[in-house]
Amino acid sequence: MKATQFFISTLKEAPADAEVVSHQLMMRAGMIKRLGAGIYNYMPMGLRVIRKVERIIREEMERAGAVELLMPVVQPAELWQETGRFEKMGPELMRVKDRHDRDYIIQPTSEEVVTDIARQELRSYKQLPKNFYHIQTKFRDERRPRFGVMRGREFTMKDAYSFDRDEAGATKSYESMFAAYKRIFDRFGLAYRAVAADTGAIGGDLSHEFQVIADTGEDAIVYCPTSDYAANIELAEGVALLPARAAAANALVRTPTPGKSTCADVAQFLGLPLTQTVKSLVLATDELDDKGDIAKSTIWLLLLRGDHDMNEVKAGKVEGLRGGFRFATVSEIEDHFGTKPGYLGPIGLKKPVKIVADRTVALMSDWVCGGNEADVHITGVNWGRDLPEPDAVADLRNVVEGDPSPDGKGVLAIQRGIEVGHVFYLGTKYSKAMNATFLDETGKPKLMEMGCYGIGVTRILGAAIEQNHDGRGIIWPVSIAPFEAVLCPIGYDRSEEVKTAADQLYAELKAAGVDVLLDDRGERPGAMFADWELVGVPQRVVISDRGLKEGLLEVQGRRDAEAAKIATTDVVASVLARLGR
Amino acid sequence: MKATQFFISTLKEAPADAEVVSHQLMMRAGMIKRLGAGIYNYMPMGLRVIRKVERIIREEMERAGAVELLMPVVQPAELWQETGRFEKMGPELMRVKDRHDRDYIIQPTSEEVVTDIARQELRSYKQLPKNFYHIQTKFRDERRPRFGVMRGREFTMKDAYSFDRDEAGATKSYESMFAAYKRIFDRFGLAYRAVAADTGAIGGDLSHEFQVIADTGEDAIVYCPTSDYAANIELAEGVALLPARAAAANALVRTPTPGKSTCADVAQFLGLPLTQTVKSLVLATDELDDKGDIAKSTIWLLLLRGDHDMNEVKAGKVEGLRGGFRFATVSEIEDHFGTKPGYLGPIGLKKPVKIVADRTVALMSDWVCGGNEADVHITGVNWGRDLPEPDAVADLRNVVEGDPSPDGKGVLAIQRGIEVGHVFYLGTKYSKAMNATFLDETGKPKLMEMGCYGIGVTRILGAAIEQNHDGRGIIWPVSIAPFEAVLCPIGYDRSEEVKTAADQLYAELKAAGVDVLLDDRGERPGAMFADWELVGVPQRVVISDRGLKEGLLEVQGRRDAEAAKIATTDVVASVLARLGR
Repeated sequence: MKATQFFISTLKEAPADAEVVSHQLMMRAGMIKRLGAGIYNYMPMGLRVIRKVERIIREEMERAGAVELLMPVVQPAELWQETGRFEKMGPELMRVKDRHDRDYIIQPTSEEVVTDIARQELRSYKQLPKNFYHIQTKFRDERRPRFGVMRGREFTMKDAYSFDRDEAGATKSYESMFAAYKRIFDRFGLAYRAVAADTGAIGGDLSHEFQVIADTGEDAIVYCPTSDYAANIELAEGVALLPARAAAANALVRTPTPGKSTCADVAQFLGLPLTQTVKSLVLATDELDDKGDIAKSTIWLLLLRGDHDMNEVKAGKVEGLRGGFRFATVSEIEDHFGTKPGYLGPIGLKKPVKIVADRTVALMSDWVCGGNEADVHITGVNWGRDLPEPDAVADLRNVVEGDPSPDGKGVLAIQRGIEVGHVFYLGTKYSKAMNATFLDETGKPKLMEMGCYGIGVTRILGAAIEQNHDGRGIIWPVSIAPFEAVLCPIGYDRSEEVKTAADQLYAELKAAGVDVLLDDRGERPGAMFADWELVGVPQRVVISDRGLKEGLLEVQGRRDAEAAKIATTDVVASVLARLGR
Repeated sequence: MKATQFFISTLKEAPADAEVVSHQLMMRAGMIKRLGAGIYNYMPMGLRVIRKVERIIREEMERAGAVELLMPVVQPAELWQETGRFEKMGPELMRVKDRHDRDYIIQPTSEEVVTDIARQELRSYKQLPKNFYHIQTKFRDERRPRFGVMRGREFTMKDAYSFDRDEAGATKSYESMFAAYKRIFDRFGLAYRAVAADTGAIGGDLSHEFQVIADTGEDAIVYCPTSDYAANIELAEGVALLPARAAAANALVRTPTPGKSTCADVAQFLGLPLTQTVKSLVLATDELDDKGDIAKSTIWLLLLRGDHDMNEVKAGKVEGLRGGFRFATVSEIEDHFGTKPGYLGPIGLKKPVKIVADRTVALMSDWVCGGNEADVHITGVNWGRDLPEPDAVADLRNVVEGDPSPDGKGVLAIQRGIEVGHVFYLGTKYSKAMNATFLDETGKPKLMEMGCYGIGVTRILGAAIEQNHDGRGIIWPVSIAPFEAVLCPIGYDRSEEVKTAADQLYAELKAAGVDVLLDDRGERPGAMFADWELVGVPQRVVISDRGLKEGLLEVQGRRDAEAAKIATTDVVASVLARLGR
C-alpha cells in the first residue's frame, strides 16, 4: 500500500472525552472516529487491524472444526420471547418495531437464533457435535458508553455456539474451543491469562475468561505464579487464613471508641492489628406476596475480617441469598441492631438476624467488633463463649495478594485485565427453553448440550493498545498491526535516488510477503516519524540520500531505542528476521 | 474442505412461500434459512458465495483507488435530519430510540455518515479526490419483502462514495468506478448490461445501473444489438416513429363504437390498424394553499398511440408535471370531458385541459380518438385542422422492441434484468445540505462534488441463480461458486482404494489452488450427485472402484450433458483447465 492511495489522518491532541489511553491513541492515530455515544466509524487504519484480528479468529475456529455462518443483526422478538430474554433483559437490549408494529431486537448475541437453527437442522445424533460461529455487528445500549471501543454500544463480536449430545461431548467441545482460544490469543501476540470464571445459575466449572493483561484493566485477575491456578476475582477462592480456631485468651470487654467507625480506625485506636477486627455488613432478603409487594424481610449480618472486602457474587451463593439480596436500610439496621452503621456487631441484637461468617472470621479468636451502641466496640470476642456459632460459614471475600492459592501450590498474585474472550458451558439452558432436541440412537428426543464462545473483535484493539503503548503512541504486535513495516523515504518527491531505492525496496518487501506501507506523501521526516510511531507500525525503514551514499539504511523496531544501520542489500532479510519470519 | 467438517443441508422441496427460482434453490441448497419476513440466516454454503463476491469487490475497489472503512449500522438521527431524509423517507427507513429516548436509524445507505466524515477529514483540495467504501449490513423495511435475497429487508451492500473538487473530477471518479464495476461484473462471470439510468432531480447523465440479465428480472432493459446503446426503460428514449406529419386525407367523422372502450377493440371494430388510434390519459396537478389544502387543480390530457404505454418517469419530466402529478378522478374527468373514461379525446372538451402529445402522436394524421361521448369515437382526426396543435410534445412512452435506437445505429431490443449495481453522480446534493466544503488553492471554501456507487452483495446471489440454473439446481460461475470442484468418492467408507485415491486427489487439487470439497459423508451416489447438482458446484469428479481399475475417473462440468473419462493422472490438469486456469 502506498500512503497516497490510503487514508492517513493523525491528530496531535486527543479529544477531551477520551478518558483512557487506548481511546486517546485510537482517535489520534485515525483508527476510529466518533459518530455518536459509543458508536464509531472504523477508519481505514483501524479496519485493517480488525481484518487481521478476524482472519486469525477464522483460521483457528476453522481449525477447531467450527463452521461459519451469518445471523442477522435485526432479529424477530418471537425467539427472544421463547427464552424470556425479550422481557427479562434490561434496556441494554435495543428493541425496535417495524412498519407493521412487529417487535424486533438489534442483536447483542445470538443464542436464540442459533438454537432455532439447531433445532431445525440438527435432528439426529449423527449430526452432532456441531459448532456454528459468526462474526457480526452487535449492539448493546450501555447506560454509559465510554473508553472508546472498550465499552461501546455498537461493536463486532465473534460468537460461536456448540451443540452436543451429552455433557461429555459438550466438555470436549468446550476444551477444543479453549485450546482454539489459546492459539488465537497466542497469535495475537498479547500477554493474556485464561481465568476460571463464575458459571452463575448454570453450575459446573466450565467457564473461562480470556483476559488481556493491562494495568488499566477493569477486572482483577487472580493467579498463582507457581502453579496453573488462575481465576477472576468473583471465582478466586478465599481460603481460611487460619489453620484452626485458637482457644479464647481474653475476656469480653466493651471499649469506648469515640468517632472510630471503621475497622482501620478502631485497630489503630486500640493498638491492635487490623486482622484482629471484624467488620459487619447488613443485607436483606425479601419475600413477596401475590401482588409483588414485600410480605416479609429477613436481615442478614455478614462478618468479614477488617482488612477484607466482600464479594457480592460470592455472597450471592450463600444459601438463602441466592435469590437476590439488597443492602439493608438504615431504619432496618436501627431496628435490629439498636444503632446506626459504624458500631454494629453480632452481640446484643435487638431482633434476630441470620449471621454468616467468612471462613477466616469463623476461625478467629479474641476478635473485635462493634458494640451495637454508638462509639463503643467490644474486644476479646470468642465464638461459642460470647455468641453462638454462626448460622453459616462461607467464602465471602475478595482474595488479596499473598493469600494461599486454593490449589495449595503457592500464594496468589493479582493483575488487572481486560476481558476480551469468554468460553462458557451453557448446558441445556437455551435448548430447554426452545425445545432444541435431537433423536438419539434409540430414536428418543434429547435436549442438546450447548456451549457459547465469544471474542470481542473490536475490543481486542483497545485491549492490545492498553497493554502496548508508550509516550509516542501505539506499539502493535506484528500479527495485528495495520502494517507490518513502513518505508519512510526522506525527500521522496525531490530525490530520484531516494524514490528509486524506496520503490525498489517496497516491491521487494511486498514480494517477500511483508504487509508494507510506502509513505510517499512527501512529509517532513519529523512529522512522518511521529505519525508512524503514533500509529505503531512494528518496523520502520528510513531511506535517505545520505544512507544510500553509505550503502546503509536505518531500520528501527517500534520498541527499539535507536535505529540499526543495515547494508542496503540486507534490509529485506533484516526486516523479515525482525518480523519473526 | 471435507463435507463432514462443513455443514450441508439440502431439501427435496422448496417451502411454499418461495415464489422465484433463486429463492427456491437457495432454500433447497441450504444457502439461506428464513428467520423472519425478509430476514435470512446465511448458512455456511451461502456465506462462502458472499465471501467470494466480497473479495472480488474489494480487490477491484482497491485497484480503483477506493479506501475501505466501516460505518455503523445504527446511526444517530441528527445527521439524517441535516439532509431532511429522517423526515422525508417513508417507513422503509427503520427508526429506533435508545434508552435515553434519542432517535437513531438502522442504515439503509450511508450518504450522511460518509459526508460527515468527509467534511471533518477532507479539508484541503490536496486531499481530493477520495473514495471511501464499506461492505456493511443494511436494513430497509420493505412493505412486502419477497423473492428471498432479491427483495429482503436486511441485506449486505457495498456502498462507495467519491469526493471531488469539481465536476470534471467527479466525472473522472465516476468513470473510474464505472470501469471498476465492469471488471467486477466480468469477474463474477455473469451476463450483464450497464444501462443508462435516470438521474432524477440531480440532472446530468451520469447514472448507470448494472443489470444482470435474467428472464425473471423485474426491470426492462433496452439496448441496441448493433451499437453501444443501453438504457433502462425509464431513460430509453422513444423517438418519433414517423418522419413527418402527412397531409390530412380523411374527413372528421363521429362513429358509434358501442362497448368498445379500448384502442384495441376500437381498431378491430373499425377495421383500422391499432397504430392509427390514440389513447387518452388524464392526469392532474395541484396547487396547495398555505394550509396545505388543494387551492387549484390543473387537468392534463396525455395522448399516446394506441399500442404504446405511458412511462410515468418520462411524464414526470414534462414542464408543469415535474412537481408531481396524480391520475385525475372520475368526477374531474366527467367535469372536463363530459363523459366517463373509455371514450375520451381532445375534441369537444367541456372545460380546457393541457394537452401533451407523445412525439409520435404529434406527427400522426387521420387518427382515431374518443368522442367525449359514451360509445362514440372520432376518426380522421388531424392536428391543426380539427384541433389546435398540442400544448406540448414530449417523449411519454415506453419504447418497444423494434423501435429505432436513439443513436440511429439500429433498432432496439428489450431484455429483462435484475439491478444489482448502481453508479450515480450525486453532485452537491449532500455536501450542500451538510455543508461539506474544502479549501481550494485560493483558500476559499467550495462544496465537494460527490458520487455514490452501490452493489447489492447478497442480491448478487439471487441474480446469479436467476440467470444460471436448470431443473436440477444452481449453476454457479466458477468465481463465486461455494466450491470450485467437488470430489464424489463412491464407497469412501467401504473401499480403501477409493478412500486413498480420493484423499490423494483432494490433497493434489488443494495444492494446485483449487477450492475443492471432498464429500466424505458416505452418501449413496444418487443422493450425493443430486446434492451437488442442486448446490451447483462447477466441476465434479467421481472416484469409484471400477474407475480406478480402469485408471479412469469421471469428470463432469455442471453444464455438461455427460461425464468425460479422464486418466487418473490427468485429472488435476483437466480440472484446472476446466476451471479456466
